[in-house]
Parts: sequence; C-alpha cells; structure tokens
Amino acid sequence: MRSSISTLVRFVVLVCVVLVMVSAVGAADRDKLLTEPGVYGTFAAFRLDADWTKQDQLVRIAQLTILKGVIEQHREKLAIDVYLLRGLSDHADVLFRIHATELRETQQFLLDLQGSLFGKHLTDSTVFSGLTKKANYVPGMPDNLKAELKIPGEPGPNPYVIVIPIRKDADWWSLSQEQRAAMMQEHTEAALPYSKTVKRKLYHATGLDDLDFITYFETSRLEDFQSLILALEKVKEFRHNRRFGHPTLLGTVRSLDEIIEVLAQ
Amino acid sequence: MRSSISTLVRFVVLVCVVLVMVSAVGAADRDKLLTEPGVYGTFAAFRLDADWTKQDQLVRIAQLTILKGVIEQHREKLAIDVYLLRGLSDHADVLFRIHATELRETQQFLLDLQGSLFGKHLTDSTVFSGLTKKANYVPGMPDNLKAELKIPGEPGPNPYVIVIPIRKDADWWSLSQEQRAAMMQEHTEAALPYSKTVKRKLYHATGLDDLDFITYFETSRLEDFQSLILALEKVKEFRHNRRFGHPTLLGTVRSLDEIIEVLAQ
Amino acid sequence: MRSSISTLVRFVVLVCVVLVMVSAVGAADRDKLLTEPGVYGTFAAFRLDADWTKQDQLVRIAQLTILKGVIEQHREKLAIDVYLLRGLSDHADVLFRIHATELRETQQFLLDLQGSLFGKHLTDSTVFSGLTKKANYVPGMPDNLKAELKIPGEPGPNPYVIVIPIRKDADWWSLSQEQRAAMMQEHTEAALPYSKTVKRKLYHATGLDDLDFITYFETSRLEDFQSLILALEKVKEFRHNRRFGHPTLLGTVRSLDEIIEVLAQ
Amino acid sequence: MRSSISTLVRFVVLVCVVLVMVSAVGAADRDKLLTEPGVYGTFAAFRLDADWTKQDQLVRIAQLTILKGVIEQHREKLAIDVYLLRGLSDHADVLFRIHATELRETQQFLLDLQGSLFGKHLTDSTVFSGLTKKANYVPGMPDNLKAELKIPGEPGPNPYVIVIPIRKDADWWSLSQEQRAAMMQEHTEAALPYSKTVKRKLYHATGLDDLDFITYFETSRLEDFQSLILALEKVKEFRHNRRFGHPTLLGTVRSLDEIIEVLAQ
Amino acid sequence: MRSSISTLVRFVVLVCVVLVMVSAVGAADRDKLLTEPGVYGTFAAFRLDADWTKQDQLVRIAQLTILKGVIEQHREKLAIDVYLLRGLSDHADVLFRIHATELRETQQFLLDLQGSLFGKHLTDSTVFSGLTKKANYVPGMPDNLKAELKIPGEPGPNPYVIVIPIRKDADWWSLSQEQRAAMMQEHTEAALPYSKTVKRKLYHATGLDDLDFITYFETSRLEDFQSLILALEKVKEFRHNRRFGHPTLLGTVRSLDEIIEVLAQ
Repeated sequence: MRSSISTLVRFVVLVCVVLVMVSAVGAADRDKLLTEPGVYGTFAAFRLDADWTKQDQLVRIAQLTILKGVIEQHREKLAIDVYLLRGLSDHADVLFRIHATELRETQQFLLDLQGSLFGKHLTDSTVFSGLTKKANYVPGMPDNLKAELKIPGEPGPNPYVIVIPIRKDADWWSLSQEQRAAMMQEHTEAALPYSKTVKRKLYHATGLDDLDFITYFETSRLEDFQSLILALEKVKEFRHNRRFGHPTLLGTVRSLDEIIEVLAQ
Repeated sequence: MRSSISTLVRFVVLVCVVLVMVSAVGAADRDKLLTEPGVYGTFAAFRLDADWTKQDQLVRIAQLTILKGVIEQHREKLAIDVYLLRGLSDHADVLFRIHATELRETQQFLLDLQGSLFGKHLTDSTVFSGLTKKANYVPGMPDNLKAELKIPGEPGPNPYVIVIPIRKDADWWSLSQEQRAAMMQEHTEAALPYSKTVKRKLYHATGLDDLDFITYFETSRLEDFQSLILALEKVKEFRHNRRFGHPTLLGTVRSLDEIIEVLAQ
Repeated sequence: MRSSISTLVRFVVLVCVVLVMVSAVGAADRDKLLTEPGVYGTFAAFRLDADWTKQDQLVRIAQLTILKGVIEQHREKLAIDVYLLRGLSDHADVLFRIHATELRETQQFLLDLQGSLFGKHLTDSTVFSGLTKKANYVPGMPDNLKAELKIPGEPGPNPYVIVIPIRKDADWWSLSQEQRAAMMQEHTEAALPYSKTVKRKLYHATGLDDLDFITYFETSRLEDFQSLILALEKVKEFRHNRRFGHPTLLGTVRSLDEIIEVLAQ
Repeated sequence: MRSSISTLVRFVVLVCVVLVMVSAVGAADRDKLLTEPGVYGTFAAFRLDADWTKQDQLVRIAQLTILKGVIEQHREKLAIDVYLLRGLSDHADVLFRIHATELRETQQFLLDLQGSLFGKHLTDSTVFSGLTKKANYVPGMPDNLKAELKIPGEPGPNPYVIVIPIRKDADWWSLSQEQRAAMMQEHTEAALPYSKTVKRKLYHATGLDDLDFITYFETSRLEDFQSLILALEKVKEFRHNRRFGHPTLLGTVRSLDEIIEVLAQ
Repeated sequence: MRSSISTLVRFVVLVCVVLVMVSAVGAADRDKLLTEPGVYGTFAAFRLDADWTKQDQLVRIAQLTILKGVIEQHREKLAIDVYLLRGLSDHADVLFRIHATELRETQQFLLDLQGSLFGKHLTDSTVFSGLTKKANYVPGMPDNLKAELKIPGEPGPNPYVIVIPIRKDADWWSLSQEQRAAMMQEHTEAALPYSKTVKRKLYHATGLDDLDFITYFETSRLEDFQSLILALEKVKEFRHNRRFGHPTLLGTVRSLDEIIEVLAQ
C-alpha cells in the first residue's frame, strides 16, 4: 500500500511540473472570448458514475490532477469555466462552460476530457452550444436605457449560476423584426432593475441543438434572480417560449481547485 | 465474522459519541426556518440502489449511523425533515426536506450526504427548491377569512405527506395583479374548510427549477386532503396550471430514527 | 449440492408451518374491503430483475414461499390480489392490488414485500392509489337503469384484468355538478350492455398520484371489454380525458399459487 | 473444450429429435388464424442483451435451438411469425407476431419464451395486441372498389415489414358512424393503387393497450409503401390520428431458420 | 504481455492484407449513390459503451481494424460515411450515413457491424432512414432561382455536419399541392443566400420512421448555417413542422482513418 501511495505522489508531482510548463505557454485571451460576439459557448454537464466514489482517494486525486492537466492544455485556445451542480440540480454533478472561436476546438477539448482517466467516470452528458452576437433586437431603444445597461454590476463573488435553455414558438419567428424588437424592449425594461445584482449572458443556439437561446445567469442574490424571472414571465415575449428550462441548471460558481477539492473528498 | 461485527459495533459506538458531541453544539432555529419568509426549501428525493439491501445488516446500521451524523453536523444551519416514500410513490424511497437561509448551505449538506458511505447508495435523485414568501396575493381578503386561516390545525400526528410541484401557464403571468388576486381569493375560500385537518406550505420555485410553485401538505386524514384537491381543481385558477404533479410525491412523515429502523431491516 | 437442497427443503417446510399458523390468525374482512366505500386501493406493478431467472430453481421456490408468508402476514388488515402481466403488458411482470382502510398499512406491506428476499428482485415499480366512494354522479338516474346495474355479472372465472388510469382535463372540473352528472349518465347508459360480462370497479385518485381515476376491469370476454371501451369513447365525457391509459395494464387474474408456479419455472 | 462441444452437439441433436416429434403433433390452422376475424394478433418486440453476443457460438446455437423448440410447442394453437428489426429499427432486434383465438394462449407462449435459456437474453420488450374484425366501416362502398380490393397482391417474397400503431383523437369517436364511414371510404380509395404491391392487415387495439389500431404492412417495394403512406396522410381521416407510429417498426420478413442463422453469427 | 502484443500486431497485419484484397474488388458507384434519386439514406448513430475505453489500446486498435474491414466488405454496394458527434452532441459518439439502393443491404451492413468485435461496444443506437427523390415541390420556380441553386458550393473541407429530422403536421398534408409548392418556393428563396457555404441534402422518411424528412447539412461556416436555419424559421412553411430536431445531431465530418485514430486514443 505504502509503495503504491508514494508512486502516486511522485506521479502527481510529475504532472504538476508538466502543468506549470504548459501554463507557461500562455492562456487564451480569456477576456476577449468572454466578451466579444462571434464566440461559441458550449455547456457540457456530466454526472459522475457510481465507480467514482468507490475508488481510493489517492486514485481520485491523481485523476483530478489529470483533469487539471487537460484543462491547462486547452487554455491557449479556450476559456473554460467549471460549476458545481451536485445537490442543487438532479441533472448533473459538474458543468463545464467552454468558449471558443471554433466549435471543433471545443470538441477536441471534450474528446480529451472524456478520454482521460477522469473522464471515463463522466456519464449522462448534456451538451448544448450557442453563439454570442451583438445585441440586435433593440435599435430604437432609448439612450437612458442603454446607459443603464452599461453600468457594471456590483463587485464581489457571484456564487450561484443558473442556465436556462429556451425555444421560441413558430409564431415568434413569423413576427416582423419590428414586432420582435418592441417585445424585446419591454423584456429589457422589465429586466433592468436586476441588472446590477444579476449578471446575464445570451447565446444563440438555433440549429446547433433543439433550442433557440441559452440564457446564463450569475448572482449572489438568488431572490433578485427569482424576481427577475418573475418579471420576465409577465411580459408579452414570454408567451412565445415553447420551452423554458428542461433542464434548468442551478449550481454554484467554483474555481477548478474548489471543484477538485470537493470531488476528491 | 465475529471480529468484524465487534469492530463494527465499536465503530457505531464511536460515531454515536461523536454525534452526541455534535448535537451539543446546538441546532438551527428550526422554528424560524420553518415559519419565516425568505427561507429556501429544498426537496431531495432518492432511491436506494440494488446494492443497499444486499449488504449485511450491520454494515447498513453503520452506514445509517453515519447518515445520522451528517444530519447532526448540519443541524446548526439547516432544518432537515425526512419522509418515507417507499411503497406509496414509485419515484423514490426517501425524501429529505431541507430549509436554509442560503442554498449553498443546502448544497453542502447534500454533498456531504451523497459523499458519505450511506449516500453512495442513493440514486435517481429528484431535487427542486423554492423560496418561502409572505402571502401576497390577497390584499383585499375579508378579515373573517384571514382569521379562519390563522386557527391552528388539529393537534396530533400527521402521518401522510404529499408534495405537488406546479407550473403556471403563460396566460397566468400575463394577467393583472388584481385578476390573479381575485382568483387566489376564490382558491383560498375553496381550501378553507380543510385548513384544520390538512396543513399546507407554499414555496416559490420560479427560476430555480422547471416549476413555479412547490405545494407541501401534511395530514392524518387523506380523505380530507383528496377533497381539498378536488375543491381546488374546480376553481378558475386551476385552469392556469400547465403542470400539476409529475411527480406527485406521497409518503409518510417519519422521524429520522424511524427511517433508520425501516432501512436497517 | 445435495445437502444444500435438503437444507432448502427443510427451510421451505418450516416456512409453510409458520404460514399455516399465521393463516390461522384470521384474514381481513376481504368482502368488506372489496365492496365498501372509503377503502384505499393501491396498484403496485413490478418487473422481475435479470438475476431472478439466473437463480437456482430451489432458491426461487424458497423466495416465493417467503412471498407467500409476507402476504399471509398482512391478510388480517389487507385484501391482496395478484395478477400476471408478463407477456401481455410490457410495463411489468406482476401486479398486486391491495385494499386497505389506511394507506400506511399498504405501505407497511409493500415495505415488507420489497425488503424480503423475493422483493429484492422486484424493480421498475409502478404504484398508484385511489379511494373507493359511493357512486355520486347520477342522482337523477332512472330506476330501471339502477336496477339493471345491480344484476350480478355472469358467474365463473374472469381470466383477464385491465387497469386504465385516467386524468380529466381542467374543463371537466370547471363544469357544474349537473353537467357532469348528465355526462356520466350518458356514460353509464353506454356501458350498460356490457355490465353482465365485464366487471368494473372505480377508484378516485385525485391528489394521491398524477391521476383522477383508476378504472379496473375483469372479464372472460375480451371482445366485450373492447366493445365497452369503444362505446365509452363515443360519449361526450370521453373528450374530457386528458390521459387515458399510459399505462394500460393488461394481464390475467391468477391465484397466488398460480403466480408462484409460473415464477418458479 | 472438446468434450463440452460434443456434449452440446449431442444436446442439439436430442432437441431436434424432440422437435420433430412435437411437429408431428400438428400445427394450428395457420390459414384460419391469419385470415379470419375474431383473432388476437400480438406484436412482441425485443432487444437482445449485451451478454448474448459475449457467449460462445455453440452456446448461442443451443439456445436458439431451444427457441425453435418453444415455437414448435405452441404451433398447435398459435400462428407465430418472426421478423428481423435489427439495423433498421432502433427499438428492437427481433419481432414476434402471434395470432391466437385467446390471448391467454399468447401469454403462455411468451412466458415460455421469456423463461427459456434464449429468452433470458430478451430485454426492453414492447408488446401490444389487437383483434381482427370484419371490415365494417364501408357499408356504402361501391362494388368496383370492393372488387379491386379482392384482387390478390403480386406473388413472390415480400421482404420488408412495417408496423405502425395508431391512436385516434376524441373528435374521431364523437363523429357519427356515417361521417367515419365517409372518411374511411376516402382513405380506402387513396390506398387502392398500392393494394397490389403493399399487403395490409388491420388490428383493433382499443382498450388492450394505449392504441386504437395496429396497422401491419408487408412489401417488396418500399417506395410504393412510402407513396401509400403519403397518400393516406393527405385524406381527412389522417387528421384524427393523435398518435401515428411511436414506434414505427421497420424490418425484414424472415423465416425462423434465417433469424436463427443471423443470431448465431 | 509482450507475446500478446506481437500476436495482436500480426493479427492487425493479417487483417490489413485481407482489406487490401477486399478493396481491390471495387467500391460501389459512390457518386451515383450520393447524387441520384431513389436511393435510401440511413443514419445510424451509436454511443460507445463504458467497456470500450477500459480495454487495452492494442485491443481497441485490433477492433477498429475489424471495423475498417466490415466497411470495406460492403463498399461494393453501399456508400458509407462516418462522423464524430462526441463532444458536440449528447445523443451519440459516432454517426454512420449509409446510402443504398435497397434497405436490406444497409441492414446487412449494420448486422455485420453490430456483430463484429467492435460493434459489441456500440449501444443506444438511433437509426432512421429516408429516400432521395427528384425535387418535386417547385414546378413553377423561376429559372434564375433554379440556375442559382445549380452553382456548386465553395470548394474545400466542410468540417461540420448537422442532421435535423422533421415531421410535418396534419395541416401540411391536407394543403393542396399548389399551396405546398408556393410555401416551398418561399422556403427555397430564403435558403438561397446560404447555398454556397452550406451544403444540403434531403431524404423523404414518411412511413419508414416517425418522421417525414431528414435534412442533412455540411458546412465549414457554422454561422452561415445558423443564419440559414433562422431564415427558414421565418417562412410560413416552418409553422407546419410538428417536430424539428429531437434530436439535432451536430458533429464533424471525418475520414474513417481519423475516426479510428480518435477512438484508438
């Protein structure tokens, strides 16, 4: 037993050394990927299989170190965020959000992830992708509304994450551009009071999955988030959502190191 | 065999000693969590896997003792109730209801629960959460109605529990506040005759899951509960339920010790 | 091998002796449970797992003897019927129908059943419950109709069983009592020609599961049953069924001994 | 290894001898069962489990021989046909169509099949049953239409089989008999051009499963079958199909020996 | 270990030699199968089971070599394309598209594939088939539109593949041929701007599965594909899609050798 532990420790050290070297190569321009239009965002949620917890803790630590290595390897081209869904969502245990300029880069990361010793324990995957675009529904939006939207949210940690996929009905798409813009302005105004405490991000998913939009939220005040959704349910545009949720993913924002710590226990 | 049993017994004794110490630290203000607004209620239902019953009874007892320990550890911040669904619901065997002021505390409990030796046997989780609020639909409610609602229900054990998740349709949310209030008053009046024998509690779930409300019932008179639901099905507000149940969870209210006794057999 | 068989045989003999003693204690007033209002009827259908048939026949016989013992133990308070669905329904292999004055008695039986050595092989449970009531929809029903309904069905074995769960739509419940009574009279008249060869029983399920009614049929003439359902599909009340079946359970009425014989092979 | 093979061979020979003897007893009047009204047709589709292909080929051959034996045993009372769905349907690998005058005979065959060494590998069963009736929708059908329908289809093998379950909507059953007959005449006329190359058979399923009809097709010209369905989709009666397919079963008509040969490989 | 590796290597060499011989026999007229009407296209998607990655890499390479052999064997009659879905779709890992003049040839290939040592790891199959036809909806289409459609797409690799199954509603089929043609012309005009960068192919599935059409897309510009689908969602014909996607399959076009390389890792 002793010798196998020391072998593992030596292996972990080795992997860490490699990681430092890989990290040195340089990460993707994370800020650009997270803010610019024309970027693909992929949400990949997984459950850990029953064998995961049956493994020795040292084996799990070694496999989690490999997970860290796989993520580091792809940092040059991708922005990868991790979330802990376990306990708050019954759909999955962990969620990866991957931003890339080309979906094939995201595919390569997920192939490497699922092919790794850690990834062999990932099951029941839920994957959907969308594209970021310039806000384009609200050409006639009043200037004061635009100004308010640009005020950055409150600083500090935003521990909760919510992801809600949406599919519009056929009526929505048969409306004129003006009709949709008018409804979106009402939608935007209803959301405005919550822009400071609830961070939002929109992905256009049409054709890439059985969705039209992926809406992403971060907040440290879940009550505000709930009030936001209630406000959005009351505007006309909401009546054109054929699917809203299914699944609604709820979890907490975590650093990779926190995820590793939780999964190692 | 004998030595492994005595080892287990010693282990159980040890855990119990630790539990007593943990208990001494003090429990959360359970009453506050169960009665005040602004509290998150999470319903986490699980099935026990096929391996559970194949284990030796002493192993099961040791694992159930650990379950007790995990619950005790979180009693300071959470109010945790347990229910036995097995035999009356096909969705799950046990149900935990957790009240917390912050959902991340609930997540930490469920992480500890699922990561425990007992939790490794919990599968097919169904988890949904809602927030308690002050009753706000019925500003114009007559005083005699309000007074009747405040009469406490009959004392004594309420052995049955029913949990029914609800999603309203888009029409409901597009009604004016007054229209919704009028319908809710009709709803409340229909429910009044059953307020003494059927205890109700409401959680607002919008945005936290694919639901709008979680309705919780306790009663020792199932016939009264059934008459209550039939009465509620006949009011206008019921026509705005896009989802009512799916699942309907039916079980019996049990103390943790009773659950442990049932699962140990 | 030989010694293990003789051990089993001795065990089976022992169990049978115990059973005889248990039986002597006295059975529930089965007739009352099966005919009176205010009784809960639970339908619990199960599949047998893949391991069941892989066991040695003697092991299976021993486990089936235990099944018999569990049923005997609860005969004092419950009326328990068994049905063989295998081959005619893809939802389950066996169906138990349990009548009780209190659902917690039914829960205790199903806990004992599922906790037994036989029960460990029962998977994919489907469970739903309803309450028997006095017929109450048809106050103005003509006397000759009432008289015809009281004529007992043809004697003799009724080998087929069909269970159809029903959920009414919201429109149904928003009709006046008179409107519903008028529709139910039309329904009853349509069913009348089949009352002699198709035995029916109704359970009110609202609130106890995602159903409003459970309809139970026994017949030795499946063609008559089919004609009955076709006749019922043509009356107005049928248009208010939001769910009809899903699942429709079809099987054969069997004695416990016949079930045991089939499962032992 | 060698001795186990020779044991198997001897076993297979033995079973074959038994089969010949069983066959000699006489088969059911297959023609009657396949053409007369008042006969129950059951469609039982199965997947083979993962263990099936992992077995030694000789073991598989022995088990397939037993399959043949089970079918022979029931030939006196039943007409049993087999189809290969694997590769063309994702719902199942093999399909059995069983015709019987009593469904309990079919149940006995499926019990024997599933209880056999071969049957232990059959999983994910899909089972539905219907009753053949005299054509009764078209009393006013012109004589020339009737005459054309009686022309037998082209001789020769019909390699493809398609089974489509259908459920009508509530509106359909609330139409008058005349309205339904008129629509069915339009339906029949639309189907007429394909009656020579696409063989059809109808089963009435109402009440026996969550269906109203099971439609069965055999053809060697899939393009004609597709044109037939397109023609049927264009008549008014099609608008009353609440469910059409789900599943659509597509496969090839095979003799039992061909099925055995495919499964043995 | 060493000897088992060298045995494997020798086996792989042997298979390769056989493959070369098989290849020499001659491939199907791939161009004809991919362009002519009256050809059946089958989409067969599979997941790899959990055991796949647990095997030694050399074993996997040997099994992938067999996959190559099976595909080569059928090249004479079939056109077989492979796609990598893993990472971009949660429905499957690999997708085979098979073109054949007779579906029974496709069935034989899939039987051989699933029966091979590689195929034993393929699970959760999704299979649907359609028939290519001459474009027939747009008899009155203006000549300039027809001309534009004939301009070949941009040369170069098209790395992304998207497959979207479609089922039309009953209203669609009850429209007159002229009404459908008018809607299809609007559809075609909306799609025109994307014909250079998004390659499309249509399969008629009515009756062969629970679908009416299978739409297949290849593109190196996913943004253009997304704009194409958005444009199609805005025309009247889109309102007659009862099902659009479910699943939407998204992946990358790969050569068989690339797939083998990815799966071997």
